[in-house]
This record gives sequence, C-alpha cells and structure tokens, in this order.
Amino acid sequence: MNTEVCDEIHEECGVFGIYDLDRHDVASTIYYGLFALQHRGQESCGIAVSDTYGPKGKVQSYKGMGLANEVFTQENLEKMKGDIGVGHVRYSTAGASTIENAQPLVLNYVKGTLALAHNGNLINANELRHDLEYTGAIFQTTIDSEVIAYHIARERLKTGTVEEAVRRAASKMRGAYSLVVMSPRKLIGARDPYGFKPLCIGKRDNAYIITSETCALDTIGAEFVRDVLPGEVVTISQDGQISSDTSNCLPKGQEARCIFEYIYFARPDSRCDGISIYESRTRAGAFLAQDSPVEADLVVGVPESGNPAAQGYAMASGIPYGTAFIKNGYVGRTFIKPKQSSRESSVRIKLNVLKKSVEGKRIIMIDDSIVRGTTSGRIVSMLREAGAKEVHVRISSPPFLWPCYFGTDIPAREQLIAYNKTIDEICQELGADSLGYLKVERLSELVDGLPICKGCFTGEYPMEPPKEDIRGEYEK
Amino acid sequence: MNTEVCDEIHEECGVFGIYDLDRHDVASTIYYGLFALQHRGQESCGIAVSDTYGPKGKVQSYKGMGLANEVFTQENLEKMKGDIGVGHVRYSTAGASTIENAQPLVLNYVKGTLALAHNGNLINANELRHDLEYTGAIFQTTIDSEVIAYHIARERLKTGTVEEAVRRAASKMRGAYSLVVMSPRKLIGARDPYGFKPLCIGKRDNAYIITSETCALDTIGAEFVRDVLPGEVVTISQDGQISSDTSNCLPKGQEARCIFEYIYFARPDSRCDGISIYESRTRAGAFLAQDSPVEADLVVGVPESGNPAAQGYAMASGIPYGTAFIKNGYVGRTFIKPKQSSRESSVRIKLNVLKKSVEGKRIIMIDDSIVRGTTSGRIVSMLREAGAKEVHVRISSPPFLWPCYFGTDIPAREQLIAYNKTIDEICQELGADSLGYLKVERLSELVDGLPICKGCFTGEYPMEPPKEDIRGEYEK
Amino acid sequence: MNTEVCDEIHEECGVFGIYDLDRHDVASTIYYGLFALQHRGQESCGIAVSDTYGPKGKVQSYKGMGLANEVFTQENLEKMKGDIGVGHVRYSTAGASTIENAQPLVLNYVKGTLALAHNGNLINANELRHDLEYTGAIFQTTIDSEVIAYHIARERLKTGTVEEAVRRAASKMRGAYSLVVMSPRKLIGARDPYGFKPLCIGKRDNAYIITSETCALDTIGAEFVRDVLPGEVVTISQDGQISSDTSNCLPKGQEARCIFEYIYFARPDSRCDGISIYESRTRAGAFLAQDSPVEADLVVGVPESGNPAAQGYAMASGIPYGTAFIKNGYVGRTFIKPKQSSRESSVRIKLNVLKKSVEGKRIIMIDDSIVRGTTSGRIVSMLREAGAKEVHVRISSPPFLWPCYFGTDIPAREQLIAYNKTIDEICQELGADSLGYLKVERLSELVDGLPICKGCFTGEYPMEPPKEDIRGEYEK
Amino acid sequence: MNTEVCDEIHEECGVFGIYDLDRHDVASTIYYGLFALQHRGQESCGIAVSDTYGPKGKVQSYKGMGLANEVFTQENLEKMKGDIGVGHVRYSTAGASTIENAQPLVLNYVKGTLALAHNGNLINANELRHDLEYTGAIFQTTIDSEVIAYHIARERLKTGTVEEAVRRAASKMRGAYSLVVMSPRKLIGARDPYGFKPLCIGKRDNAYIITSETCALDTIGAEFVRDVLPGEVVTISQDGQISSDTSNCLPKGQEARCIFEYIYFARPDSRCDGISIYESRTRAGAFLAQDSPVEADLVVGVPESGNPAAQGYAMASGIPYGTAFIKNGYVGRTFIKPKQSSRESSVRIKLNVLKKSVEGKRIIMIDDSIVRGTTSGRIVSMLREAGAKEVHVRISSPPFLWPCYFGTDIPAREQLIAYNKTIDEICQELGADSLGYLKVERLSELVDGLPICKGCFTGEYPMEPPKEDIRGEYEK
Repeated sequence: MNTEVCDEIHEECGVFGIYDLDRHDVASTIYYGLFALQHRGQESCGIAVSDTYGPKGKVQSYKGMGLANEVFTQENLEKMKGDIGVGHVRYSTAGASTIENAQPLVLNYVKGTLALAHNGNLINANELRHDLEYTGAIFQTTIDSEVIAYHIARERLKTGTVEEAVRRAASKMRGAYSLVVMSPRKLIGARDPYGFKPLCIGKRDNAYIITSETCALDTIGAEFVRDVLPGEVVTISQDGQISSDTSNCLPKGQEARCIFEYIYFARPDSRCDGISIYESRTRAGAFLAQDSPVEADLVVGVPESGNPAAQGYAMASGIPYGTAFIKNGYVGRTFIKPKQSSRESSVRIKLNVLKKSVEGKRIIMIDDSIVRGTTSGRIVSMLREAGAKEVHVRISSPPFLWPCYFGTDIPAREQLIAYNKTIDEICQELGADSLGYLKVERLSELVDGLPICKGCFTGEYPMEPPKEDIRGEYEK
Repeated sequence: MNTEVCDEIHEECGVFGIYDLDRHDVASTIYYGLFALQHRGQESCGIAVSDTYGPKGKVQSYKGMGLANEVFTQENLEKMKGDIGVGHVRYSTAGASTIENAQPLVLNYVKGTLALAHNGNLINANELRHDLEYTGAIFQTTIDSEVIAYHIARERLKTGTVEEAVRRAASKMRGAYSLVVMSPRKLIGARDPYGFKPLCIGKRDNAYIITSETCALDTIGAEFVRDVLPGEVVTISQDGQISSDTSNCLPKGQEARCIFEYIYFARPDSRCDGISIYESRTRAGAFLAQDSPVEADLVVGVPESGNPAAQGYAMASGIPYGTAFIKNGYVGRTFIKPKQSSRESSVRIKLNVLKKSVEGKRIIMIDDSIVRGTTSGRIVSMLREAGAKEVHVRISSPPFLWPCYFGTDIPAREQLIAYNKTIDEICQELGADSLGYLKVERLSELVDGLPICKGCFTGEYPMEPPKEDIRGEYEK
Repeated sequence: MNTEVCDEIHEECGVFGIYDLDRHDVASTIYYGLFALQHRGQESCGIAVSDTYGPKGKVQSYKGMGLANEVFTQENLEKMKGDIGVGHVRYSTAGASTIENAQPLVLNYVKGTLALAHNGNLINANELRHDLEYTGAIFQTTIDSEVIAYHIARERLKTGTVEEAVRRAASKMRGAYSLVVMSPRKLIGARDPYGFKPLCIGKRDNAYIITSETCALDTIGAEFVRDVLPGEVVTISQDGQISSDTSNCLPKGQEARCIFEYIYFARPDSRCDGISIYESRTRAGAFLAQDSPVEADLVVGVPESGNPAAQGYAMASGIPYGTAFIKNGYVGRTFIKPKQSSRESSVRIKLNVLKKSVEGKRIIMIDDSIVRGTTSGRIVSMLREAGAKEVHVRISSPPFLWPCYFGTDIPAREQLIAYNKTIDEICQELGADSLGYLKVERLSELVDGLPICKGCFTGEYPMEPPKEDIRGEYEK
Repeated sequence: MNTEVCDEIHEECGVFGIYDLDRHDVASTIYYGLFALQHRGQESCGIAVSDTYGPKGKVQSYKGMGLANEVFTQENLEKMKGDIGVGHVRYSTAGASTIENAQPLVLNYVKGTLALAHNGNLINANELRHDLEYTGAIFQTTIDSEVIAYHIARERLKTGTVEEAVRRAASKMRGAYSLVVMSPRKLIGARDPYGFKPLCIGKRDNAYIITSETCALDTIGAEFVRDVLPGEVVTISQDGQISSDTSNCLPKGQEARCIFEYIYFARPDSRCDGISIYESRTRAGAFLAQDSPVEADLVVGVPESGNPAAQGYAMASGIPYGTAFIKNGYVGRTFIKPKQSSRESSVRIKLNVLKKSVEGKRIIMIDDSIVRGTTSGRIVSMLREAGAKEVHVRISSPPFLWPCYFGTDIPAREQLIAYNKTIDEICQELGADSLGYLKVERLSELVDGLPICKGCFTGEYPMEPPKEDIRGEYEK
C-alpha cells in the first residue's frame, strides 16, 4: 500500500506480553519482541514490567515517541526489573499522536495495578466513554485502552478474578481488539469475537508469551504454541497453565479476520491463524497471473511489499522474476525534505530504477495496493524513463472503495483513486499499459477459506458500522 | 535551608492561571509566569491552554522534565493557541518524579475538558483514592490533582456549575492546596481553609491571573488585585467579574499559613497575604540580633537565602553587613560530579570564601535553616580556613524537629541535626563559636500576627496528622 | 560482506560536489546526493557551500556524526546559502572516528578558502605528513584530506591556478583517492591514476556535479555526463566548460579499479566506468552457477547484498529464485543490545527465515563475501532449523586472504576464515553441504576486462604496498 | 557592564592547565577548574589530556558548545585518561562562534602533539596569518591559537626545547595573551609582556596548575604559588621544578594590565597580580562616595556585578547598604523569548524591584559600567515605579569611549551612550536625578598603582593599535 513509497504509513499497533515463571527479567525480551513488531507501528512505543514475587505488584514503565531502537536505551531497559510485562508499538488510526496516548496504559485500581496494551479499534468507544462520564469518570487520553481499563476496573468490583473482569469488559466492546493485560500475578490475552486482529501464544523455557505475530516469537527464540481464538480470553498464571475462557466466542464460521493483515500488515514470515502470510501473498500473485495474464519479459515487485506477490506471479506465469528497483535503505521515519529545492521528488529519493533490468523490456509491476495512485503513477513513469517498453500494473488486492472502522487507516473515499473510476480510467491515470486487480472472490482463497472481513473492498461489514465518523474525535 | 548549599531542593509547586478576555494568546505569558515561579519547583513543568471562543474547548498542552527554560521552545509555545490557560512548576514532595506526574492534569469528563494545577499536599488523598477505587475509578498518576479532578467530575453530575463542583470537591479535601482550574470558559482558583499555601489574583488590561506569588504578577507586568482568602473559591468568567464563594472558609483566626513560605519558600520580592517576604526575613534577622546578640566585626549571609536576615541583623545590631561568599552562578540543576576525583567538595565548588572580607574578623554567619548540618559545618570550616577569628552562626528559623504533612519536604527526624541534641551540642558539631536560632515565639511576629502553622518546629498541627506516613506510597 | 548481517560496516566514503551556474542554492541538493551515497559511509557527514557571486568566497559548513538524515535539519540546510558546494559521507578506514575528522575539510590559505572531500586511502600519507611537519606544518586531524590540502596550498604558491595546484598535489599522492575540491569560483574533481575509486560527472540544467556514483545523479534528477578518467583532473568554472587535465594519467591499461566496488561497495543501480554494478553482480552469480553447479530446489540471497548474485545464479542455472529471509528494516546504525538477556542472537534479530520457503528444500544460499564466517555459519544453521534439507553456500567473490591498503577495511589475516584453511575446512566450519567461491580468474570478466586491483584476494597490488601498517597510526 | 541585565556578555576566555606528577587523572579536576572560570566564557569549552608515562603522548580531547556543565558528562570525563591536560572556556571577541573554533587546539607537529588554550587577542594575528599563508600554511579555524601553534611548530624546528619554541613564538605576537600549552611531558604557561590578562600558578600535592584566576585554585583546593609575570614563560616538567624564562619581559613599570579585569571581568574572590578583585571594587565604590557624594537613604547594587562597589560606597558614606533587586536565578544562557507577546520586557523577567526596600526612599544605585544605557535606563524606571523618591546613579568605572583591541568586546563608538554626550545629557537619558562616574585618575588607585591599560576610557594604548578593525574578519 504505497501512498508514499516505503512510507508504510498504514500500520496499526503491535502488542507483546510475557510472563517468565523462572523469574528472569523480561524487559529486554519485550524490547526484542517490539523490535520484531515494529512494522505494526512506528509512532510511539512502551514497555511496562512488574515483579510477581514482590509484595505489591509495583509497575515500572517507559514510553516514548519513535522506534523501539530510539526510545529504549541500555539504561532504561536495565532499570525495569520484573518477570512479567507488556509492550506496545503504536500507529494511531484514532486518537492523537502524543506521548499521553502511548501505550501500555498503566494504572492503579481497586485491586492494585494493571497494564494494558491494545491493538484494534472499538466502534462503540465514544458511547462507552459517554456512559462512563455520566457516572463520574475522567479521561486523560483518547485511546480505547482507557475505556477498556475502566470497564475492567468496574467489573472487577463485581467479580472474583481479573480474567473474568477482562472477559466481562470485553463483552461490552464492539469492534476490533487484541489485548494483553498484566495484573500483578497474571498475564491475560483477549481477542475480539470476530478475530479482526491476530494474537498468538508462544513459550520459551518457562516463559509464556502472548503477542500479535509469530515473527516476534521467532525473533526471541520462542516456540509457537497456538493462536488465541477469536473471542477467547486466555490467562497465564503462576502454575504455568494456559487457562481459556471461550464464552465470548461466536459460533464457528462467523469470525471476520481482517484480510488486509494477510495482504499487507503482517510480516511475511508470520503465520496468522494457521496461514503463512508469505504464502497468502505469493498465492495472490499466482491468482493475478491466472486472472489477469499478459505477455511480458519480466515480473518485478515494488519494494518491499510487492515482492512476494511478484514472486508468486513469476512462478505461476513462467515469466522471469527480477529486480527493477533499488530502495534507499536509509530512509528513516523522519526524512527531512528541505524546502529550498523542489527538483528532487520524494519517490526518486527513496527508489531508483535499475535501468539495466528494465531497458527495452515489457514489465509486469506488482504492488500490494493502490490508495491515491500518485506514487504508483510516478513509479510507472520512472520505469518508462528507464526504457521499459511496456508497463503492466498488477495489484495483489481489490480496489479500495470503503472506509474501515476496525483499525485500517483508509483515506476519505474522494481521495481513493478507485472511487468513481473504471479500471480503464485508473489505468490511464497511472499511465500503465494494462492494469489488473485481485478479484474480490479470490480473497478468501488467500486464507484457505477462513471467514474474513473484506469491508474496505465491498462495503459489507461483519457488524453494523457506526453512523458518525469515529476517527479522531477525541483529539485534543 | 541549605542541605547542599544552593541546591534549594525543598521547594514545592507553583501554579499560574490566566484568562484573557481580549482573546490574546496566553501561552507565552504563562511561560514567563512559570519562569518567575521557578524557585517553587524545578523538576517538571507544563502549560495547558484552551480557546474560549471556539466551539469545543479544545485543550493543547505541553509538559516536560526540567526548567521552564529547558522544556519550552519558541516552537511548542507558538503551537499552543488559546486565551485561557494554566501552568505549573513542580517539585515532588509526594508522588514519583516522572513525566506522568507532571502537571497541569488535562482531562475529559462529562462536561467537556478540564485542566488542573495544584500546589500542596492532601493528608486524606489515600483515603479518597481508595473510596474512588471502590466505585470503579482508575488512577494513572500518583498526584493529588487526579483525586481532586475525580471529585470535581463526580460533583459536577450533581450540581449546576463547575465552580460549585470545585467547591464541593474542595470541601472533601483535608490538607494543603492552592488550586487553579481551567474549564472551557472559566478560570477558577481555590485555596484550602487553612491557607497553607499562598494564592493571589492579578490583572493586566483585560486579562485576569490567579497564581501562587505576586512576583509572577510583577514579571508579566500585571497589577496585584488581592489574595485569594483561605477557603475561598474564586471564579473568573467571560463577564470579567471575580465571583467569590467563601462557604468553605473557617472562622477568622483559625487559618494556618505555612510559616516556612515566609522563612524560605517564597521569593523575597513577593507579598503573601499582605506580608512582604523580604521584610519577614529582615525582621527575623533583627530578632536574632535582639535575642542572640554577640560582639563581632561583620555580618554575612549564606547566599542567597541567608542574605535578607543578615541585612536585618546588621541593621538591628549596627555591625556592618558584608559579603563573605562568592556563589558560582553556573551551578545548574544537573551539576555533574565526576567520580574520578574526590578532592573537590561540592560545597567548595558552589561557594568560595572572600578571604579579604573575613580575614582576622569575628563573623556572624546567618542562614535560613539547618537541616542535617553537614553543609553548615563545612561553611564554618571554610570561614575559619580563610582566617576568620570567630564564627557565630545565627539561624533565622527555629530548629526543625517534626515532620510536615502539608508540602514541605523535611527528612526523617533521625537525620535532623536538632533531633536529640542541645543547642550547645549542635554548635559544637558545626564547629561554631556560638549558635542562635530564632525563637518559636518570634514566628508569628514575622507575619504581623497572622495565624500560622509552625508544626515542623513544634509538632503541633492545625489538624490531626495522618497516622501512616503518606509520603511516597503511590510511587511506582 | 556480512560480518554481522546487514551491518554493512565496510563501506568507504562518498563525495558530492556541485556548482550551479544559475546561482541557485545547492545545500539541499547536496543533502539529497549524500543521502543517495549513504551506503558509502554512515559514521559522519558534512556539507560546505560558498557563493561564487559574493566578494570573498565565504564558506558555510555543517558536519556531524551520523546519517545525513540525522545530521541535517531544515534549519541548518537553510542557513547554508551558496551556489557551489561539496559534501561527504564517511566511514573511517584510517583515522579515528571523531567529529574533528569529519569532512569536508574547510580551510583558509593564501588564495582564500578551499573545501575538500576525499574518498580513498593514501599509502604515503605518513611520509607526506612527516615531510610537511619538518617544514613547520601542524595537523589538527588524522585524515588524508589535510595532507592533500597542505600540498595544494604549497603548490598554489608556485603556480597560477588552483586546478594546477590540485594536479601537482595529486601527483605526490600514492594510493587511492577520488577528490572534489571547491575553491571560491571553481569546482574541481581529481581521481588517482589507478582509478581505484569511482568518480563521475553529471549535469542538471546549468548545474554541474562531480560525485562518487551515478545513483546520486539519478536521485537528484541529473543526467550522467561521463566518468572522470583515472588520473584526470577536471575543473568546472564560471563559463560552464568542463576543462580536463590528463597529465597525471597512466598509460591505458595500467589502471587498477577496486573490484570490490563492483562486488559489494557501490549501489547496484550505479554504473562505474561504464559497467553496471547490478550486472557485475548477476554475472558473478551466473559464473558461480557455471563453475560450482549443484542440484537444488531454490536459490536465495542473503539480503540485501547477496540478492543480485542469487538472481544471476538462478537465471543461469534454471533453479527458481526465492526469498528465504525477512530482514527487519528497522535495524538502525545504533541498535541497542541490552545486556540483560543473551537468548536473542543478533543475527536472529535482524534476519528471520521464511520457513514456508525453505522447508524440505535443497537451498543454494548466495552471499557476496565471507570475512570471519561467524554470521554465515549462523545463517546456515537457521536455514537448517527451518527445515532445509541441504544448504549449499556460494560466494560471489574469491576468499579474502590479504590486506587492502587502498580503502577497504579488511581485518587482520588471522581473523579471516579463509586464512590457512582449505575450502573443505571452511565448508565444514560453516556447516554447509557444499561451498563455492567465485574464481579469481572470473573477476576481470565481471567488468568486461577493465584493469582491476584484486590485491585482497591475491596479494598482488598495482603498486608496492607500505611496509608498516598504515591504518590507524594517527589516532588520538 | 549591563547591556542586558545579567547577560554578562562581555567575558573573554579562561584557561586551566594541570600536570600531576603523581600520575593521577586530571580531567575531572580540569572540569572543576573550568566551572570556576565559567564567568570568563559561556559559549564553548573543552578539555584535552595526555598521559606523560605512556609511549607516545596520545591526546584525548572533548569540546562542545555551551557551559562546562552541559558539555561534559560523567562518561566523556571518564574516557579522558591522563595526568597532564589543559582546558578552556570561551567567549568570542574575535573569530566566529562555532565548534571548530572551540579550544583547546589539539595538533600534531614535528615533535609529537601539542594542546593549546589561549585567552586574549593578538593585534597582529592577520599579519601573522598572511605571512604563514605565504609559506604554504592552511588554517582551519579563525582563532589566534592556530597562529600561535604554527609559530611554535616552526620555531621548534630551530630550537632544542618546546618551551624555547613557545617563548620565541610568543615574542612574535603583539597584543594580549595568556597561554597554557601541553606538550607530551611538559606544561607551559606564557603571558604577554604587558600582562593584559591574568595568569597564575598553583599547587595541590604533587600537581601543578597554571590558570587564569585564583578562584579556580580555591575551587579545586589548591594553594596559590605565584602569578606568572608579564612576559614570562614558565615550564613545569617531570622533576617538579617551575622553570622560568623572563627574556620576553619588559622593563618593570611598562606593563599594562587590563583594568577592566578588576572592574568587571574577574571573579570577586580572585586575586590578580596581588590585588584582591573584591577590594578593587569596594574601593571604586568608596572613591565614588568621596568624588560624587549625594544625600540619600539607601545604597543598592545592580546584581551581581554592582554589589561590591555598592558596599564600598555604603561603608565610605555611612548610608545604609540594602537590597533593591531580586534577580531570577534561573535565567540561563539560552533564555527563550517567545514572539507571541511583547508585554514582558527582558529586564523585568530577570530582575524585579523589592518595593518594600525602595518605597519613598532616595536611592543610590551602583553599577559597574554603562555601555548602551538602555538597560540602566529601564532599571531607573523600575525603581521609580516602585516608589523611589530619587535615583542617583553611580558607575564604578569611567565612561567607555574607545575601542579595545586586547580582548574586551566594546561596541562601536556610535552605540556607546557616552559618545558625544555630556554627563548631564547621559543622566537625562537614563532618567536619573544625578549621575557620577569613577574618575579616570582613580583607576590606578584601584590596583595600588600597578601599571594598567585604560585604553577603552582614554584612547591611549600601551602599543600602537591596528589600523583596520581586526575583529571578526576571519568569520566564515
């Protein structure tokens, strides 16, 4: 999804919780986990840890704006002593981008301390906030985690265990959430009944991990145990058992995993609900080869996200796969664009064409998605300037046409290139020789028929969408 | 109060609120106000502003660790657009020193937004927290402001105006507080019934100010209107009236102003409740001259805080006032003490003796207080090394003997030099030729008989002190 | 050359000079140029500009430790006004890594100001320094540029033009250098007679560029004019002519371009002396396929540098090319490795294996070089853990066996895996099923027979190497 | 010298050299020394150390913009291992304010390494630079130290010892300099024949110190040994002897110490050439009382620099000394002045009047000097606004009328308030009731008749001033 090449601006959040029953400190492992989940959010990150063996569940936390590598130092990691903890990387799809909104949320409540890290978007958050305010609640952030925390605190007054309070609170939430909660002596994971966002369980020696993606398990050398089920609440306690509460679950087949996790969000080396992300993407390329074939000399991907589909296309079509673009690996989060000069386009700064590869050739250029189309258009031009004879664009997802209410940051319809345009018109706007999108029908084949949400492509959502635009209202 | 010369570590907080009816931006004026109040807290500071003319009372805020001069930049001040605002400088006497605890506290509640800045210490904060938690409240900080905010939010459900909610909330608080609250279209100030901490009202053109000390009014060129009464709640609204609610006030004469504000905390150029701080201090020096006279050649103050009393002593005794110490003006908040060398004592780095002044002379050395005594002892030695024939120490406050529950950070009794020692023994420990403290009886004379709290000297408090030590319990 | 995967620590420097005859400011264009050359040096960078129309050739410069993106801000770029300038990115192969050693070197001399940026390594620098010192010179840095500057300044006393002074100074240098020099009204480029390091000329409208690689021209939208010849001195002056002095050149065929530029240093999208870097690398892969064939299911590259050769191998062998590794794109220059935990290996943090790709397969893994071998060994293990049936390692360069005196940072012989070991022994140490290196005979075929230096592989150098180790002697 | 109250912008540099024969590390002691000399320069500072026992005289150095407290950290101080070293604090009177110009200057030359720190201003620096350039020298900074270093390096070729090279180099310098030089095994101090700038020797155990002011000796607990004589070169070598070369000295009585060191520059607790700075200043006050008497109620100083003279005036006149101003101690080097508001004057932000002190009184206000007069005028107004009945201004130096070529930064004549105005006219411009300056005749009495330079008051200089304005020409 290149609005600005390589900007990767559409990620959501990543969560990572760990409980080490052997009482080793976990802060540095969380740090490595966040580092593996960094593609899910680069705005801010944070870690909170606690020790389960001390008397009071004292929480130590550190949060900051920026990448894990920028926020955490040897020094602040070493200060966080504790054998249980949660971490978070954030890209805001709702809520302002400020340090106040960084997660995990750490709080005191009637039963001691809690730390929460949350990925997803609630569609009834405003309603829940208003309800709480009418009973005297105050809100210091604009993130959903604060609403969830309030509900946990209130439910906890009426129920015997924190996991049951989490479950009851979860049952009031409508929308997408994958949640890890650290209470003084328990690590809890919860996933919304539709399973929009991934969540999985891992284990390393005597330490249990609940995290967004399996790539975080690989990075820290943990083995994959299983996915958390849509609607399930899992609890790791001192006895080392993974207890499960599935009473929030929907009947099998009614889930609605976000298909865009498979197309773009998740890291290719992750598996979500049993499906290899990399394979979903190569499969999308293969479908494009079958459904939108074209004669050509070379298949190339727009780095990095277009490469797996390009490889799938190449394998399925027999047309050789090659490299057409060199990406400047030093593009950081905060690339400075001096005003002085307007000659240097931001695409060219980040991406250069390998003339040798494309000169005189018919090129199939694969990208994962098109949002506004500006960048794709520029890349097509660059290929032509470099001597490509033909440029055939293939997109490994259907056209974006509808808003997402569950965590994906899709611009207003008017800004979407596919809005009110035929495929031919889009093709012309991009300056391509031909254009093919993945068919909507193919989406569920990418994930072996798992029930999915494809609302951003079809406008059909697994639950009634909110009437007002819920994004950003609470910004201060 | 020199524990470490010039460290001035014992300040509390300063608050500054402003509402400009002519709708000029106020952020930079708040910044200047905080700068004038910087002596009241150097750990962290913050500003929150809002515009009263916009539709929603959108609050913009910025907080950080450090001095106003370090935290605020041209850029972040310019971003904060608004004609009403509050600011805060903080030194923590309770609550951990972290960015989460920086003030003002900004929050959403049932009626919109609030921003609070608070100076003081509640003795029933834990109790109030627990009560709130038992009705489902969550706490994200360890500062009293959060407790106060919750109560305002809850009272607001039952009452028609925010100022009445503030008053009702205040009536539940026990202890010391001077508070400024910004609601979307009102600026409110509240002071506890004992009047522990100062709070005053100023005016500049059509802008009203509620702040801790008059020196902040002078700095921004505002005129002094009046002090907020102990127990009073004052409200500035769009009509430019200062409305007052005195129903929380105690009967006249039952207040208990913190005498240490006059002895040490407040800036000498401020007036608090009608009393010039500078005059209180010179008067203390004059009392010492009367009550603990000694023959000598020169009266000197330990800079900066000992100087006014030294001037008062000199005037009353007729012994010339002089300068014995040169203070290094570049000692910052974060002076680095390299481990490499232990030859350089931290006193000598900050203070040097003017040999020419003291050589061969009998010196009366005045300081505002002695806590542990280590520093005073070192300064006495330095005077002797520089050739002073005699060193007579006079302290412009009585000996510290008891804890303070209302905002002053006094170490545990065992660490106080005066604990379990006679004046003679202290004198000997300091290596002085004689030692005189201000008499407890003189304290109320410093403030023309205003009712005061002198608990740290006498152990008698205006209200029942808490049983447990309330300081630091909520630290995370 | 993966000593630490993705650390890319072996780059040298990159230079970028520009003279805009239309008098536009050039600082931001230099910044973009440095950004394109960032792979040649990440330790420090700098820009110096001057205006040719002002009276005095006043130079403004800014240098710092870190990436261009970190060192330069909107603000410092805007302050540098001037239509002529030079920039530099640095990785130190000699000379300490300090801000004092950052380039460009800016100086005053008898004829006004000069700014120099230099890539390469002189083997007679110490000798030249000593000679200068014996006539009273002082040195404030440990970089060769200072030695060159002195010689230019001295030659300038005896000759009429700065370009002739540069040429005479260059004739005294032995070793590798590509140099851009800015004098008040001229931009000069010089390349050593062996042409070790690349240098080329570009043009955009009325602006002329002299820079290390063509990728910098592409990034700023300039067209390639020609390469600077080995030994040539080119001068851009106000009339817009590129004047050339070839009197330092060697007879055709005696040059000795660094072959490692083609194998590893240069960016794949650059062309150096007419040779596409990308093509050299795919060609190396093809040669490996011919010379070290093996039956397998998949060819994979170790990212990023192994990919082009892997693609060449795949095309030549007909074995499919695939992706086996996912590289974490957020590994920065300063990745923090907390001490707390030793479970997370640094390879696994940066690289993860795509199990789906390699499971049950016979893998050919291509890398550009092996230095110590530790990393390669770990990657082989990771492939096996992920289920690879066989791992055949192919390296697109011959074994490193000898030191480089001309700018490439090769560790001491004892640390090289190939030192004193047979290929079989190395293969065993890596845990691979087979191992093949590029044959030394193939090297010149990579560059269509251009004369090259392959000293690091053969120990035969185009000029007598120095007796002492010249690296690092001047470190302070 | 208040151009902006308390800005203290006119300081020069401070130097500190130490050689510890017992081989203890000296970096942290230098740091403390610089801290004591901070009033002499706040722009940049630096430390260079070397070890005398190692084989090569390897120098480690660290420099930065800002105060010693900001530039140095525990970490960088600990890295600098060595038993000999020099340090510098800088305020630029000539040469641009950039990191390149920070001192000490560290360099390699024919005999190894040197580090130099310099205070003063050479009037023939440009001439010397040009001469050097005509023999091929290059200059990387615009500071005089580089010129001096070149001369030392060249003289060293012709002479047997580094101290003799320093002496010969010094003999070519015209103007003001106090210099410390560290060679691998010697610490050398040199002072110009006129003795413009102070320089003294101290000792602590087996460590010898050469530094600008005695206050630095006091701070590190060293004893004062003696002043370096004007024109003298002193050398500390391994045997612990202080060898002296006086062949550059002028005949007794021809020196020309800068009188402004006594009036303003030096710290009051220092002694320079046997004269207590504090006493010079109180004496100036006493002279004012005799020469410009006036009836009044209170004598006050403009803090900090006006206080000693005010005390002297009070003692001599019998009029009581008091405090009229409270200075905000948190004004840092980089006080932010937001553009938003212009209501807050910068004087009022830094200084507030103690109304209680001045109300209804006739005030004598003492300052050390007047430059442009703007600030003094504002302070007079503030006193009046606070209720002073009369304001009599007394200045403890004569009117500035001429430029200084030897290190004091005096603005162009046209900007001086005293230029082309009578005392009465100045008095009127300030809005004072009367005005008195110190008489020029009194200046030498301040220093017991030591020969002085009073050129800035009289236009008569001890040597021919340069024809061109030498300040700032080399700025880049």
